[in-house]
Amino acid sequence: MRLPIEIKGVGVYLPPTIVENHAMEARHQLAEGTIFTDLGIKRRRKAVDENVIEMGAAALQNALDHAGYVFEDLDLLINASVSIAYILPNTAILIQKQLGKANSGVPCMDVNQSCLSWLAALDMAAALIAVGKYRRVAIVSSEKPSPFLNQENVETAALFGDVAAAVIIEKSERADCGIFKSQFVSYSDGWNLSWMPAGGQINSPLKEGIPLTDYMFQMQNRRLLLYTIKKTKDFLISFFKSEDVMPLAEIKHIVPHQTSRAGLDFLTATYQLEGRVIRILEDFGNCVAASIPLALCLGIQSGRIQKGDSVLLIGTAAGISIGAVLLKT
Amino acid sequence: MRLPIEIKGVGVYLPPTIVENHAMEARHQLAEGTIFTDLGIKRRRKAVDENVIEMGAAALQNALDHAGYVFEDLDLLINASVSIAYILPNTAILIQKQLGKANSGVPCMDVNQSCLSWLAALDMAAALIAVGKYRRVAIVSSEKPSPFLNQENVETAALFGDVAAAVIIEKSERADCGIFKSQFVSYSDGWNLSWMPAGGQINSPLKEGIPLTDYMFQMQNRRLLLYTIKKTKDFLISFFKSEDVMPLAEIKHIVPHQTSRAGLDFLTATYQLEGRVIRILEDFGNCVAASIPLALCLGIQSGRIQKGDSVLLIGTAAGISIGAVLLKT
Repeated sequence: MRLPIEIKGVGVYLPPTIVENHAMEARHQLAEGTIFTDLGIKRRRKAVDENVIEMGAAALQNALDHAGYVFEDLDLLINASVSIAYILPNTAILIQKQLGKANSGVPCMDVNQSCLSWLAALDMAAALIAVGKYRRVAIVSSEKPSPFLNQENVETAALFGDVAAAVIIEKSERADCGIFKSQFVSYSDGWNLSWMPAGGQINSPLKEGIPLTDYMFQMQNRRLLLYTIKKTKDFLISFFKSEDVMPLAEIKHIVPHQTSRAGLDFLTATYQLEGRVIRILEDFGNCVAASIPLALCLGIQSGRIQKGDSVLLIGTAAGISIGAVLLKT
Repeated sequence: MRLPIEIKGVGVYLPPTIVENHAMEARHQLAEGTIFTDLGIKRRRKAVDENVIEMGAAALQNALDHAGYVFEDLDLLINASVSIAYILPNTAILIQKQLGKANSGVPCMDVNQSCLSWLAALDMAAALIAVGKYRRVAIVSSEKPSPFLNQENVETAALFGDVAAAVIIEKSERADCGIFKSQFVSYSDGWNLSWMPAGGQINSPLKEGIPLTDYMFQMQNRRLLLYTIKKTKDFLISFFKSEDVMPLAEIKHIVPHQTSRAGLDFLTATYQLEGRVIRILEDFGNCVAASIPLALCLGIQSGRIQKGDSVLLIGTAAGISIGAVLLKT
């Protein structure tokens, strides 16, 4: 059941504005160092003037440049982000427009599984490639949570960062690469442990009396952590129980969603992953669906992840969902 | 490149409230019969108290009942709708919750390609099944455009209707069924010919001064029609040029997106499709991404579409995108 794909290009867009902790700590009258101690985050990017279309387009252009391709070489563009430019149309087609490729005809779709959007889209794209529908697919995640963070709540205001990342995958003839296993689960009893109460149809902007903070991200940190840890343990037992999957101990790199210090520490300690986890939380915070592809892209760009390496991409998402993809690059 | 899937269950949810034309005509001081003459629509459904989660869950339960399955028999649930319950989390997981299946673990994802969301999701689901990732997938489209229609603009207020439809597909051993071809294209120069200017990140509810009508659907009817007709002609030439696809003249049923009277009349007349088009526009209007699955479900429920029949599912979407899937049921 190996899906024969390989990564041909990676690209990121990092907004130039960097927000360090000290301003937030001063505002909330916290001692210097409190945010890093509590959240494991030193700084995060903030998209001041850039919107998610521009950010996604920039990351995709960088991935195309890295691969040596032009936009028209793509057979499919998937935007896989929680941040959406408009309710209608979908955001991927606006990234096509932003790159000046309106007449290319390249089909543009969006996939959403909260913070696992990019990983879910990767799995779908690989299946579409494996059956011969497409040869080459770009998957972009462009996240700008910053306007939707309640600055009065330092736990969420300090947690999230804005970035975009793009990966181009294509059909491969190599035998040592591809997706070897993927698995996703969803448990909706955690549906409002991290969510945005307003903005969709249930509490839409056309309804009167919705407080502005309801359009912002809300999270029950401790309950969410306990719930996802419990579910992740069961998930990993299930993921590795089949005999055709290499043991976790032999996987070279772990690329997790950068949920929080507590989440990453749990994962690293419980499964003896020290030295194998690509951890970018300190410099970028939690970048919603862009965290996993950003960590993957930076790992490849820095040379830490080499061709043929085994990589476990894994994360949790609002809802809640848990997902993992075992990839050889 | 046949994807070996078959349809095992279909289900719809039709809100009981029916809005006939006469009230709209009276309000806009139009002569009786004007809306039907102009738009080809006699009535549409309106979800008064039902939200998109409840509608989608009801349609899915009907599809499960039709197939003789329970929710836990599903390997994947895809919500493929423009209408979203919340910005975060994705809507599919809320349908899982609505059905009381929070602990099932069935993974829940959303796919969005505007009015082609369901068709794009069908293609993705079939690929995932073909490669062995899943055996059985439900694809739900639940649309409630009614709150987002500007009642001062009768052309859009009368055009859209609220419904939900669900289809369960699974791996098939039969040789006479499956997806034989699919194709999607996107041309973003039509990005604002039909759109909702506010509600996403670009013009978010947190910005001051956004007029309420910007949260509503806006359309440049005539430009959109001319543009999509031109692009659809090229698309169909491309779709049928490969030798492994049966000619359009031999396809038994055409299930189009119910865009508008003008769009359906163009398609039917230009390609000699009389008697083969499943047309539900008159009773339901344009139901956004739910139009194609609703027409398919009603065609199967009525016995018009029989096992083994060839069906061309085809539509256009805001953005604009065009897509088609050639299916044998």
